[in-house]
Amino acid sequence: MSAPYRRVALIGLGLIASSMAHAMRRAGLAEEITGHARSAETRATALEIGLCDRVFETAAAAAEGAELVMLCVPVGAMAGVAAEIGPHLAPGATVSDVGSVKREVISAVAPHLPAGVQFIPAHPIAGTEHSGPRAGFAELFENRWCLLTPVEGTDPGAVERYTRFWEAMGAHVDCMDAEHHDLVLAVTSHAPHLIAYTMVGVADDLRRVTDSEVIKYSAAGFRDFTRIAASDPTMWRDVFLHNKDATLEILGRFTEELFALQRAIRTGDGDMLFEYFTRTRAIRRGIIEAGQDTDAPDFGRVKKHED
Amino acid sequence: MSAPYRRVALIGLGLIASSMAHAMRRAGLAEEITGHARSAETRATALEIGLCDRVFETAAAAAEGAELVMLCVPVGAMAGVAAEIGPHLAPGATVSDVGSVKREVISAVAPHLPAGVQFIPAHPIAGTEHSGPRAGFAELFENRWCLLTPVEGTDPGAVERYTRFWEAMGAHVDCMDAEHHDLVLAVTSHAPHLIAYTMVGVADDLRRVTDSEVIKYSAAGFRDFTRIAASDPTMWRDVFLHNKDATLEILGRFTEELFALQRAIRTGDGDMLFEYFTRTRAIRRGIIEAGQDTDAPDFGRVKKHED
Repeated sequence: MSAPYRRVALIGLGLIASSMAHAMRRAGLAEEITGHARSAETRATALEIGLCDRVFETAAAAAEGAELVMLCVPVGAMAGVAAEIGPHLAPGATVSDVGSVKREVISAVAPHLPAGVQFIPAHPIAGTEHSGPRAGFAELFENRWCLLTPVEGTDPGAVERYTRFWEAMGAHVDCMDAEHHDLVLAVTSHAPHLIAYTMVGVADDLRRVTDSEVIKYSAAGFRDFTRIAASDPTMWRDVFLHNKDATLEILGRFTEELFALQRAIRTGDGDMLFEYFTRTRAIRRGIIEAGQDTDAPDFGRVKKHED
Repeated sequence: MSAPYRRVALIGLGLIASSMAHAMRRAGLAEEITGHARSAETRATALEIGLCDRVFETAAAAAEGAELVMLCVPVGAMAGVAAEIGPHLAPGATVSDVGSVKREVISAVAPHLPAGVQFIPAHPIAGTEHSGPRAGFAELFENRWCLLTPVEGTDPGAVERYTRFWEAMGAHVDCMDAEHHDLVLAVTSHAPHLIAYTMVGVADDLRRVTDSEVIKYSAAGFRDFTRIAASDPTMWRDVFLHNKDATLEILGRFTEELFALQRAIRTGDGDMLFEYFTRTRAIRRGIIEAGQDTDAPDFGRVKKHED
């Protein structure tokens, strides 16, 4: 397939943008990749490791003349970037983003884009706990879902072209309503992250009592929480602030359930606990069958993806 | 090293017992391994795959004449097994267990053991989300901690011999007070498991609303919770019922923290969230430095341990 976009601009050069750069080069999806990051050090790294052909000190300069402009900055920074690049976008360009929240990103970005520019919000459900331009790799999106939440009036041809772009990077693509996206992600991602952050915070408080024991004996459950809670703080602050309603709704349900289980522990209701744990076990089977994880036992010997 | 125990009896033949059998055979730690499981099918499997040299229909028969008797049953079944085997134990035998809770196991088991038998409670902090006799493998304990909580008056020679036994299976060994063990494990294991079970339960309720989307898009955080929440329901019911006080204490602290973070989301206090997430990120670094996990990015491509 010939390069579907002549020039792709990456605004923000973290884990997702750098993985996109690797994946685009592997599949030959862009003739040229331009980039912008606020930090001069990040820009220099992007050139050094070949993420971008050219880097620019401003987002506007990087976006100028690009056929596809990818906003890969934290959700809270989207509005500012959109306002800056809006006047510089080429007619007919496609603008997209990789934010984990869609409704508020649409509100923040859409008003700044000129008529004729196609805005196709996207959320690749992929990531690791690492961040920065050196954290990316071409395989990140393989067999992962990329959700698009196009707004009314978007050119179907532009959506089709952009869909093929993600598929060529290895992803499966689904389209859905932005509000529905935000609710589903609150369940599968945002609430679990807040809960993991909380549990690790509690353990940190207790660490002063138990010295290093919490870390030393972390193998049995807690370790997985610390991996989740090692994710980028700026990105996650913005996710919670911009998907507030859905996240608080799910956390409310979570607390209700947690209290019911706590009560079963307190009153010694073993049957209730057993039934609950049996039901949750079945969900795991569904995820393995859906190809979103493997059945290999995880006992903390994760190998590097390069292996 | 010559076999430190002439005959080892495994009472209960699940993940931990079967991993011990593999590890003992690899390191030549027992001349003979006897076993008992309540289910005839499990006993047949244990013979078929060579876990045990001989299996018995009763725990008493399996324990008879053994130098080391390992209680590898759920915590709630310990008292019954101890009462059954007590009269049949060889003089000078060592009895141990692998329960995730120590204070109530000691109360349940110790009264049934005759004078001269050494009881050394143990908790190998190792496991996977799988269970049953076919789930075990020799490497499970490598570089993992095994915590011993010996009671007053235990023969130091017996503890030393038992310590070497675990070290020969690849584990590091620490001794501590049973009550302290139960608090540390409530933080690192018991509370995280209950929280994961709860979050997966909430998602299951919502699945009726969101169809299969929760499973399909599980890659971003939720997937790790489902793995934890796929652990053995009987084992975990018993853990919570028998480490009730410490678990409820930690869950209380957790809820308090969660409410503080929810409040920060509701009021838009981004600084509080950012500082909190930055602090929890540092804990991850500690766990990697302590050798209890690797720094390899986990993006759901866990390889089988046989690789």
